[in-house]
Amino acid sequence: MANISLPELRGLAVRVLTASKTSPDTAACVAAALVRADADGIPSHGMARLPIYADQSKCGKVDGFVSPELSETGTAAIRVDARCGFAYPAIDLGLNRAMEMVEPAGVVALAIGNSSHAGVLGHSVERLADAGLAAMAFVNTPAAISPWGGNRALYGTDPIAFACPRPDAPPLVIDLSISKIARGKIKLAADRDEAIPDDWATDADGNPTTDAGKAMRGGSLLPIGDAKGAALALMVELMSAAMTGSQYGYEASSFFDAEGGPPKTGQFFFIFKPECLGGKNAVARIGALMQAITDQPGARIPGQRRFENRKRAETDGVDIPDDLLENLRWRAGG
Amino acid sequence: MANISLPELRGLAVRVLTASKTSPDTAACVAAALVRADADGIPSHGMARLPIYADQSKCGKVDGFVSPELSETGTAAIRVDARCGFAYPAIDLGLNRAMEMVEPAGVVALAIGNSSHAGVLGHSVERLADAGLAAMAFVNTPAAISPWGGNRALYGTDPIAFACPRPDAPPLVIDLSISKIARGKIKLAADRDEAIPDDWATDADGNPTTDAGKAMRGGSLLPIGDAKGAALALMVELMSAAMTGSQYGYEASSFFDAEGGPPKTGQFFFIFKPECLGGKNAVARIGALMQAITDQPGARIPGQRRFENRKRAETDGVDIPDDLLENLRWRAGG
Repeated sequence: MANISLPELRGLAVRVLTASKTSPDTAACVAAALVRADADGIPSHGMARLPIYADQSKCGKVDGFVSPELSETGTAAIRVDARCGFAYPAIDLGLNRAMEMVEPAGVVALAIGNSSHAGVLGHSVERLADAGLAAMAFVNTPAAISPWGGNRALYGTDPIAFACPRPDAPPLVIDLSISKIARGKIKLAADRDEAIPDDWATDADGNPTTDAGKAMRGGSLLPIGDAKGAALALMVELMSAAMTGSQYGYEASSFFDAEGGPPKTGQFFFIFKPECLGGKNAVARIGALMQAITDQPGARIPGQRRFENRKRAETDGVDIPDDLLENLRWRAGG
Repeated sequence: MANISLPELRGLAVRVLTASKTSPDTAACVAAALVRADADGIPSHGMARLPIYADQSKCGKVDGFVSPELSETGTAAIRVDARCGFAYPAIDLGLNRAMEMVEPAGVVALAIGNSSHAGVLGHSVERLADAGLAAMAFVNTPAAISPWGGNRALYGTDPIAFACPRPDAPPLVIDLSISKIARGKIKLAADRDEAIPDDWATDADGNPTTDAGKAMRGGSLLPIGDAKGAALALMVELMSAAMTGSQYGYEASSFFDAEGGPPKTGQFFFIFKPECLGGKNAVARIGALMQAITDQPGARIPGQRRFENRKRAETDGVDIPDDLLENLRWRAGG
C-alpha cells in the first residue's frame, strides 16, 4: 500500500484519463468522483475502477470527449442525454440546472439517459442536501437480479439513494443497493473456492446455492426481502431505464470491461425543497428523528462513517494498493 | 361468511359512517376505499377496519366532518392539510389538483399532512397510472420497526407504492411495506401461543425472538434486508412525516383504537409524466420489461392478483364474516 494525498490522486487520475481519449474537463469531473469514493472508504468505486474507465474511453465504449445535452421537457422536468459518455458530467449538468429550476417549482424530476456507471450515488444526492435540498435517486446497472420466481437476471443491483439536510450536522445520506450482497463478495468466495450462505445467490436454474462458482456462472444475486426486494428492483429499473430512455439491466453491457457497445444505463433524480412540502420546520423535524435514533444505545444514523473517513482522508490521504498505483502511473505516461 | 355485492357493501359502509359523525361526502369516499380493498382480496384494509373507523370518527379522534385544505407552495408542489380527518378525501383532493399541475410541470410533489390511515396505498397510485401518469408514494404508520441496532420502534411499517401505465394491460402496481411480516400475523401466532420464525420480530430488548407474545409486548417488527430495510424505513418516515409536516411513527397514536389524539401521520406522492422524462416510447418500454418477466417460467408481475380478485368481486361480490356484518348492520341503525 502507498499513502497518497487526495490532490495528488486527483492529478494522477486526470492524467490517466486525458492519456485515454478523455477531455480535460471530463477527466477532472471523473477524477473528483473516484477520489471522493476512496476518501469515503468505498475503494470498490474509487481508483480501482480507473483502469477499466480508461480502457473504456480508449476503445470508445464510453465517449470521453462528448458533452451531455440538456433539454427542459416541463417547467419542472429535465432530460439529460449523456450521449454515451461518462455519467458524472451528465449528472453535474442536470443537477446544476435542477437546483435553479427547483426554486419556483418546489420539485424537479431529472432523467439522465444513455449513461454509464454512476459511481457512488450517495455523493450526487449529498451535493443537493448541502444546498439545503432533499433528493431521491435511482440508478440501474447491468443485470444481476432475477424477477421473483424466475431464473434469468433482468434487474441490476439497482441502488436507491436519499439525502436531506440536518440541523448542525452533515446531511443524512442513505445509499443502498437492492441486492443482498455485492457481486464482488461472491466473486471473492469463488476465487477462494469458499462456500457462500444460501441466501446470497441462485444458480443458473434459479435455485439458491452455496456454491459461489455456480452463482458466478449464470446465477443471480438475491434481493433483500425476497419478493419485496425483487419488486423494488423492478421499480428502480423502470425509473432508471423506461423513465430515462435508457437500457434495462439485461440489455446493458458490463461496467467492468471494454467489450461491447456503451452500457446506456440511466439515472433518475427527484429533487425538492423540504420547506416547500414539509413547512418551515422540516429540517428541524429531520433533526428530531436523528436525535431519537442516537438516543438509543447501539442505534446509528446510516452513512455517517463515510464522513469520518472523508475527514481523515483529507488530512492523511488514502492508501492505494501498490500494483494499482503502478498500473495508473504507467497509464499516465510515467 | 355472507356474500355481499360491492354496491350493497358501499351503501352499508356509508350508513355506518354517517351514523358515526361523518359527512355524507366523506363517508362515500371512505366507503369506496374500504370496499375496493375487500374486492382486491385485501380484507385487512377493507370492511374489517370500519368498526374502528366509526369509533374514531364518533369520538373525534378522526374528524369526519372536516374538509381538507390545499395550498400550492410551488409551481409543481402541493401541500394538503388533512386537518385530522380521514386520509382518503385529502388524498383525492391532492391527486385531482396534481393531475392538472403535472401538465406543464412534468412532475408534481404532493405532501399530505395531519392525516390518518391511508388504506391500500397501491389504489392511490393506480388511479394516476389509469390517467397515463406514473407515481411513487410513501406513507408512515404508528411505530413498528426499530432503528438498526436499537430496541425501541421509531418507524412504522412504512409502505412504498409505485404505479405506471402498461401498454394494453392494467397498470403495474407495486405496493409493499418495509416490515418483513405484518404485525397481524404475529398477533395471530401470539393468540394461538405459536412460535414465530426468528427473523420476524425482536423482543423489548431488541433481540430476535421466536416468542410471538414477547414480540407483541414492546418488541419490534424486523425490516426486510436488515440494516438496508431499516434505512429504507427511515427514508419513508422522513418523506411521510418531516416532508409533510406530520408526526413520526413513534409520535403517532394507533390506527387500531379510538384512544388518544389524532394520528397525524402523512402521505407523500411524486407524480410524473412518463413521456416527459423517458421520451415518447416510455410506456412501450415499460411493456418490454413486463414481457421479459412473463417470458420466464415461474416469474410473475407483482400486483396482478389484485386485478383478478377485483374482476371476480365485481360480478360475484365478496364474502364478509357474519359477526362483522352483524356489527356493521347494528352500527348502521338496522
